[in-house]
Amino acid sequence: MAEHLRFAVCYWHSFCNAGHDPFGPGTRVYPWDTAASTPLGRAEDKLDAAFEFFTKLGAPYYCFHDIDMAPDADGVAEYEKNLKHMVALAKERQQASGMKLLWGTANLFSHPRYMNGAATNPDFAVVARAAAQVKAALEATVELGGGSYVFWGGREGYSTLHNTDTRRELEHFARFLAAARDYGRSIGFKGNFLIEPKPMEPMKHQYDFDSSTVIGFLKQHGLDQDFKLNIEANHATLSGHTFEHDLQMASNHGLLGSIDANRGNAQNGWDTDQFPSDLYDTVGAMLVVLRQGGLAPGGLNFDAKVRRESTDRDDLFLAHIGGMDSFARGLEVAHALLTASPWERMRAERYASFDQGPGQDFAQGKLGLAALRDLAAANGEPAQASGKQERYENLINQYLMR
Amino acid sequence: MAEHLRFAVCYWHSFCNAGHDPFGPGTRVYPWDTAASTPLGRAEDKLDAAFEFFTKLGAPYYCFHDIDMAPDADGVAEYEKNLKHMVALAKERQQASGMKLLWGTANLFSHPRYMNGAATNPDFAVVARAAAQVKAALEATVELGGGSYVFWGGREGYSTLHNTDTRRELEHFARFLAAARDYGRSIGFKGNFLIEPKPMEPMKHQYDFDSSTVIGFLKQHGLDQDFKLNIEANHATLSGHTFEHDLQMASNHGLLGSIDANRGNAQNGWDTDQFPSDLYDTVGAMLVVLRQGGLAPGGLNFDAKVRRESTDRDDLFLAHIGGMDSFARGLEVAHALLTASPWERMRAERYASFDQGPGQDFAQGKLGLAALRDLAAANGEPAQASGKQERYENLINQYLMR
Amino acid sequence: MAEHLRFAVCYWHSFCNAGHDPFGPGTRVYPWDTAASTPLGRAEDKLDAAFEFFTKLGAPYYCFHDIDMAPDADGVAEYEKNLKHMVALAKERQQASGMKLLWGTANLFSHPRYMNGAATNPDFAVVARAAAQVKAALEATVELGGGSYVFWGGREGYSTLHNTDTRRELEHFARFLAAARDYGRSIGFKGNFLIEPKPMEPMKHQYDFDSSTVIGFLKQHGLDQDFKLNIEANHATLSGHTFEHDLQMASNHGLLGSIDANRGNAQNGWDTDQFPSDLYDTVGAMLVVLRQGGLAPGGLNFDAKVRRESTDRDDLFLAHIGGMDSFARGLEVAHALLTASPWERMRAERYASFDQGPGQDFAQGKLGLAALRDLAAANGEPAQASGKQERYENLINQYLMR
Amino acid sequence: MAEHLRFAVCYWHSFCNAGHDPFGPGTRVYPWDTAASTPLGRAEDKLDAAFEFFTKLGAPYYCFHDIDMAPDADGVAEYEKNLKHMVALAKERQQASGMKLLWGTANLFSHPRYMNGAATNPDFAVVARAAAQVKAALEATVELGGGSYVFWGGREGYSTLHNTDTRRELEHFARFLAAARDYGRSIGFKGNFLIEPKPMEPMKHQYDFDSSTVIGFLKQHGLDQDFKLNIEANHATLSGHTFEHDLQMASNHGLLGSIDANRGNAQNGWDTDQFPSDLYDTVGAMLVVLRQGGLAPGGLNFDAKVRRESTDRDDLFLAHIGGMDSFARGLEVAHALLTASPWERMRAERYASFDQGPGQDFAQGKLGLAALRDLAAANGEPAQASGKQERYENLINQYLMR
Repeated sequence: MAEHLRFAVCYWHSFCNAGHDPFGPGTRVYPWDTAASTPLGRAEDKLDAAFEFFTKLGAPYYCFHDIDMAPDADGVAEYEKNLKHMVALAKERQQASGMKLLWGTANLFSHPRYMNGAATNPDFAVVARAAAQVKAALEATVELGGGSYVFWGGREGYSTLHNTDTRRELEHFARFLAAARDYGRSIGFKGNFLIEPKPMEPMKHQYDFDSSTVIGFLKQHGLDQDFKLNIEANHATLSGHTFEHDLQMASNHGLLGSIDANRGNAQNGWDTDQFPSDLYDTVGAMLVVLRQGGLAPGGLNFDAKVRRESTDRDDLFLAHIGGMDSFARGLEVAHALLTASPWERMRAERYASFDQGPGQDFAQGKLGLAALRDLAAANGEPAQASGKQERYENLINQYLMR
Repeated sequence: MAEHLRFAVCYWHSFCNAGHDPFGPGTRVYPWDTAASTPLGRAEDKLDAAFEFFTKLGAPYYCFHDIDMAPDADGVAEYEKNLKHMVALAKERQQASGMKLLWGTANLFSHPRYMNGAATNPDFAVVARAAAQVKAALEATVELGGGSYVFWGGREGYSTLHNTDTRRELEHFARFLAAARDYGRSIGFKGNFLIEPKPMEPMKHQYDFDSSTVIGFLKQHGLDQDFKLNIEANHATLSGHTFEHDLQMASNHGLLGSIDANRGNAQNGWDTDQFPSDLYDTVGAMLVVLRQGGLAPGGLNFDAKVRRESTDRDDLFLAHIGGMDSFARGLEVAHALLTASPWERMRAERYASFDQGPGQDFAQGKLGLAALRDLAAANGEPAQASGKQERYENLINQYLMR
Repeated sequence: MAEHLRFAVCYWHSFCNAGHDPFGPGTRVYPWDTAASTPLGRAEDKLDAAFEFFTKLGAPYYCFHDIDMAPDADGVAEYEKNLKHMVALAKERQQASGMKLLWGTANLFSHPRYMNGAATNPDFAVVARAAAQVKAALEATVELGGGSYVFWGGREGYSTLHNTDTRRELEHFARFLAAARDYGRSIGFKGNFLIEPKPMEPMKHQYDFDSSTVIGFLKQHGLDQDFKLNIEANHATLSGHTFEHDLQMASNHGLLGSIDANRGNAQNGWDTDQFPSDLYDTVGAMLVVLRQGGLAPGGLNFDAKVRRESTDRDDLFLAHIGGMDSFARGLEVAHALLTASPWERMRAERYASFDQGPGQDFAQGKLGLAALRDLAAANGEPAQASGKQERYENLINQYLMR
Repeated sequence: MAEHLRFAVCYWHSFCNAGHDPFGPGTRVYPWDTAASTPLGRAEDKLDAAFEFFTKLGAPYYCFHDIDMAPDADGVAEYEKNLKHMVALAKERQQASGMKLLWGTANLFSHPRYMNGAATNPDFAVVARAAAQVKAALEATVELGGGSYVFWGGREGYSTLHNTDTRRELEHFARFLAAARDYGRSIGFKGNFLIEPKPMEPMKHQYDFDSSTVIGFLKQHGLDQDFKLNIEANHATLSGHTFEHDLQMASNHGLLGSIDANRGNAQNGWDTDQFPSDLYDTVGAMLVVLRQGGLAPGGLNFDAKVRRESTDRDDLFLAHIGGMDSFARGLEVAHALLTASPWERMRAERYASFDQGPGQDFAQGKLGLAALRDLAAANGEPAQASGKQERYENLINQYLMR
């Protein structure tokens, strides 16, 4: 099971986010935020706390943004120096603990300078400033042995179409990603670059709307050999899809690289980033993952936060344990459905008419419209075939309740 | 103005749909549905009524599905015969009235045989049967001089992922479209093939989810030289975009081919197909259309139905007149914004840093990450630039109220 | 368990609805719809088929609308005669089989005359016509020993606010319900009248939007002694609530009378009426039902339809069996959570400060604002208490997986 | 027009909120936030800036929360002292400028102590602490001559039903409101208490979901003589209604007390609080306001914020001016529709059958079900009447474009 359950803890929600929301500040007081007197001192304390948690929890991976781990700075040189300092410490902690880095990334959405976009900002000066962060974060990822590098374009989109030239911004986006790829490869990064789709929030509309949008964009710009997708459950549902749908679309193209394992709330229209606990979600996800043979070098990152009201010290443990148990059970059920139930046979039989004869010819592009028409005229009305949706739904519950 | 307001009346909502919904049958009793004693007789009466309406209304175009105009039949030969008969009559009416065909299409979603899909049906026999209809509808479109041919994939999607091999179905979809293109070109069709995106309904999820999904699919399968998009307002909003957004995405790729001019309802989650009356929608649409220089050979098809409760004979006129006035006013306002207001200058200035110097180099792919980082380090913190959203919004209202 | 699992099969979806949707007709050909040559003959065949299914399935209850069971007619007298005839036959079948009627109702939404409303129609003639149906359906319900009588106001709402006087229509609605109650009591009906909330569809907006809206309306018009609520899962989720929320709101007021057990689809914005299969839904529902001590004389009516693509004869069995199993498991888990887990104790402890002392005084309305302020000033900052949401979520999964 | 356009500027969005969102901090640097060295000094600077803006803009009213205007404090006494100090200064500014207070309120949602609710907190100590703020804010409102006092229950709801006793919390809510009313009346407050409905955010679900929910609650607890509703556009649309719908429901009961004039975004599921600019919204709102004869002592409060990217000093002016113009034009169009168009006559004629005869008898509760049935049987099928929705929609556009 461990091969498919490559769990990661995320640095930001668990050690930076104290529980703020648009209507109030954080509710959790972290000792590492207050004890030391300098930003670097606090960052060091936070690193210690994070690795203590990672180790106690027993998850094998973690993920971070540049400025989660190191203090931000307005000057590029100081920012780089801070990050290098912290990365060196993190490397020591990794070696001491056996923890590994699932992926690294740069935060290009919080600082006010990115309010109009980072790679897609209408001002070139901001684009260049964003590039400085990506360069540093790529170097940090390589230094820490990260298997992937993620782009989540929090401000890459628009607040209003009125002031936005989407064609131009999307071209800049592709240029930026190509430059990042080239630099990453030049410094020895062998892993996947990952795009994380999200339809909206913080922007009214984000360019990386969903799996299919991102896949089209990557292929159009020749980026699909180096870039894959990091699918987040809550982002998929915000875009009008199920989690499983967006995973499947990426997997269809060989582009499912990693998963941000969380969940949204079907009644709320924002990114609630709750810990995954719905077994239907985890079964659906693991069906896709098992069919494609796993996620490595990607994994299951808990991009999730305990609720603002979850202020006990043990809540962070309970939340991660619940998430891991949910995916472990999802894996067991998915595996049983695929190997011990009639599920895969039923699906295969549905498409059997394309496995040979004229159906196969059609699938291979060998039959034109006139030939198809003649077959139809000769064969008469096709036989009706039930979709059996309720039968499949019963199967899932049957295996879930075993 | 006529060059940009290529209005079309749709046959199905106005002459076939009597107002049914999931909870009740139609409310309108059409004389053409009852007077004649044979299906062909009723189809002829309906054709007369339709052309009478077209002529009185003064819209220059119309659109139809094969079985809107001609009686359906289980046998392919009889179906083809019915359609040929009616197309001959329609051709006479076109010549007599000066009406033109904006586009034709085949209904591959109503008949129960298509319940599991048409081109994407898991049973090859159904795919072949669908091909027979597309072949006939293409011939009809050519015969009637239609400028475009539309695919709306009402059943091309899934009711549940459980029983569906999306990868296989999407490949079949591409094979089918290629076969249609090849056949159309072989019989002299010079116009655009059009895909009409819709995210859901009748299926839980449809493959042609939105503009970006379809664009990616067309490019992946080498169909983007022959296929463009027919964007419907209500479909765009169901997919989580504004109407203008989906128009703009298509236009960015040179793939905006035609428009289904209607509107949805922001509080209802189904395809309400109301007549367009919101001037913000029409201004937004005409901004995109004017910037790309028009829609020809496409146009503005009122894929809209009067409400089920609108049962007076004059309601159909009132609805179309309201829709035409809304787009005419939208065109006037959009034209004024583009030519008489600071709108376009404000937008251009936002991106001026990419028109020369290192910004231009970046846009042309000439600057790597390290060069960008050095520029950022040298230049210091970028100057803040307001997005001025409220200023743009005020401009629209100012020109709307003039 | 039987005491809490009072399952009912609904006549309409299972024996009348052949699978139509807005884009196509039904897909299932029912033998009872075609064999007999008269409407009454077909209705009799349908009754036989229905009772055969009920008996084989082993569900103890069923539900029906007047015109599900008996042929509709434009004339009131003929309509009444048809219904009386069929009710007499149904009574025989009930006696022979032991089946019971959970509730009856009248269909006041399908016929075109109700397009602008039934009880809330702007034309009094339609209101009176609706009253004729309710009178007959009440008599049928009494004759068949139904435990409840349901109002679902499919057309009670508006298509547009522009033409609607909502104040006047809502007053008429209350008058109509009061008249129905008085008549029902006069003919010996002892059961509950039930309102079934739904926010929209078929109308843009319906008056019985959700639990809380209906509760307020019933209390305002003095109807809450005779009327309770029939909560449908899919209607609750369409109104922006969870199923459990709307059940709880009704239960808080002692007004949860019965349940329409189905489910919607979190990505689709219409009434999909799928069979219930999500165990989280059924656990949540049974928590509310167990806490209030059951639903009798109401029950769990499967107001659900097999998918349009589910055309095999056994699909209807599979769907009902899946639904029954889901609620049975939901009951087991809910019972275990309430009796064997710390769930109820954890909840009670959260509110312990109101069980005595000044908290209890406040809850009893004995403390004014000044007294509260003085307590706050004296007591200092309140201690922080975690909401423990993740702990509760883990508990559900723990009991679900047992 | 001034009598109906009682505009207010809100203190919080315009002078406290620097543009933060869940993914980044504020973008605007306010001089009043940085110049002075003490919290009270900064609050005084902010007050000066606010009144300078009010005066230059020319809006007659403003609104504030206690801790917008005065520094918060953990101790009740210090908090009260701060507020009293600032209220005295504000009173001077009001007298000097002629500005008036539309309403005051207390912020019971930002401080972490309120994370589990204020009046509905499961811990009585928090309820008491909230009471201290309401007492002080009521005194401030009276001192400044505010016409209304508002409750927006940002944390009054739940994050999960699992840990929540909704029945108990709602009873506490009623007790709390009654205590506030009694205290307010005891210190001479003559205005309206107002509840502001919102369905969700920050909580997963809020108790004051929408107009109808709040109306039912107020009536149930005997609060509807003192409390009215403050309807916010963006909150109405988040709850699945149009702005006009929620206004109309409140107005139907004589309970529409004031308006928070902003707008949401049809594609985004959170509270965007944009400045109102859609003329259809403002026409719809003013139709309700004109029909009920105005809003006084309430008004139109711009509970709206410039976009995070709107960082120029003049953006705040542009936004308010655009909002005021939108409502002024909305008022003109609504007035013309009501007085110069056939709008009201068309609506009245729809309901004419209830103005006399048996229809009137029914409306007055004088006709039972049997009598209604006999009228229906005698009268035959009712005549069909079109709802004319498209006609009404055309009328709006016709008057909008004049």
